[in-house]
Amino acid sequence: MKNIYLIGIGLIGGSFAIDIKKHFPESIIHGISRKEATLEEALSLNLIDKKATLDDLENADVVIISIPVDATVKMLPTILDKISDSSLVIDAGSTKEAICKVIENHPKRRNFLACHPIAGTENSGPSAAIPDLYVGKTNIICEVEKTTFKLQEKALQLFTAIGMRIRYMDPVAHDKHIAYVSHLSHISSFMLGKTVLEKERNERDIFDMAGSGFASTVRLAKSSPAMWTPIFEQNKDNIIETLEKYINNLQHFKELMEEKKFDEIYNEMENTNYIKQILNGIK
Amino acid sequence: MKNIYLIGIGLIGGSFAIDIKKHFPESIIHGISRKEATLEEALSLNLIDKKATLDDLENADVVIISIPVDATVKMLPTILDKISDSSLVIDAGSTKEAICKVIENHPKRRNFLACHPIAGTENSGPSAAIPDLYVGKTNIICEVEKTTFKLQEKALQLFTAIGMRIRYMDPVAHDKHIAYVSHLSHISSFMLGKTVLEKERNERDIFDMAGSGFASTVRLAKSSPAMWTPIFEQNKDNIIETLEKYINNLQHFKELMEEKKFDEIYNEMENTNYIKQILNGIK
Repeated sequence: MKNIYLIGIGLIGGSFAIDIKKHFPESIIHGISRKEATLEEALSLNLIDKKATLDDLENADVVIISIPVDATVKMLPTILDKISDSSLVIDAGSTKEAICKVIENHPKRRNFLACHPIAGTENSGPSAAIPDLYVGKTNIICEVEKTTFKLQEKALQLFTAIGMRIRYMDPVAHDKHIAYVSHLSHISSFMLGKTVLEKERNERDIFDMAGSGFASTVRLAKSSPAMWTPIFEQNKDNIIETLEKYINNLQHFKELMEEKKFDEIYNEMENTNYIKQILNGIK
Repeated sequence: MKNIYLIGIGLIGGSFAIDIKKHFPESIIHGISRKEATLEEALSLNLIDKKATLDDLENADVVIISIPVDATVKMLPTILDKISDSSLVIDAGSTKEAICKVIENHPKRRNFLACHPIAGTENSGPSAAIPDLYVGKTNIICEVEKTTFKLQEKALQLFTAIGMRIRYMDPVAHDKHIAYVSHLSHISSFMLGKTVLEKERNERDIFDMAGSGFASTVRLAKSSPAMWTPIFEQNKDNIIETLEKYINNLQHFKELMEEKKFDEIYNEMENTNYIKQILNGIK
């Protein structure tokens, strides 16, 4: 765990950097980014020790990729080409099927571990990185059996040190379920924000009427379009399915309102209150 | 500000009780509730000093009504019948038009001040009451000109002491705008919770995949159906309008997905990021 190379140093990569430095103080964090400004910012925030390029990857003990998922799909084969035989490459993408697919026949497939740490905030960029982001959070690992045993072990050592719990899943199931519990939330939030802005954009005073409930439901509408557009693209079919169900439920609710069936509206809400038990388990 | 009568001692009424006691230590808080168990709980939590009934209201300096809005509409005329000429009656309902309407010709109309404190959590009942709930929050007052000057002043003294900022609005505009910035958020959250539960109810493990983003967007789905059903009923027309716009925006987003117009999806999200500026102002 000496030479760590971060490809992408935003909220996810930067927060890894902070916690790796804390738990593995002997490590040297090398940063790779498309943008020079990001590298400079990451240096000045002490997230990375050194700037690097893809050609330096042969020196990497661990490579952590946290860039938009379209860029991951594009770059992952090249990254595997460049690493040494003993390197571990981890990604942190919110989709897993396309990423696993693109390197399924790569000669260094066994150096790669497909991961999705369920952690984050609505903020992005190096300045969004925070300590302890991963403590108590779930890390979903896909196709673990395709990674060499020694490197599985190395990855687990890293994840355990920074406080994550591990779940194993296949990429197809991951993408299907994550559409419901993450991707749909982002769309519902973006469209809620859009609906209110369209109505109220020119009446700024009206937002004095908005309370913490509104803030909570539209929080995800602050998320980065550069990060989320490729996620929606890669998980298109699953997301369309969730959207259909969500729209149908809203449409049904509207019809109950129009038909003044308020007893049924009460029941809809009471049944959904069951979500309390589930949310109690989420940090 | 000596004898304060609370009709309803849940999250809203109970939190008023805590802060009134803090800022007006000489006050005596009397609790009125349909349910004996609520009164006992409020007593044991020290939210109220004494139990009372509607027939005691002639002794009230201030009456604060925080019960479901259908019950407010039903009881408000009786409450005004029972108070003395110098009493101030305040409500805290999330709708204002029906409440103002029902007492517009009441002989004690000038003893009533229609209020909507934009404060709360998704919890309910006496145990949900918390100190300082109202600090820095907005209180929307409707038809202030219909309340006698002396009692306006008394109410402002109370609201200022517990840290609220005041906005004045007419009831029709209040109900129209609050449908966008509060009521729609609750429905989007309930239907999101429902959609995910329908899919994932029998796969409890899947909620290990849910992170803070999901928790944030479905938080309001924990809200009380008894409180919210009558709000939706009283604000039916405005809410149906917001639901139509919200469903149309979701439908459009789904079509962009189906047509693979990801550039437009990017733009949708980027335009909505503007919500950041607005949310910065919300506590």
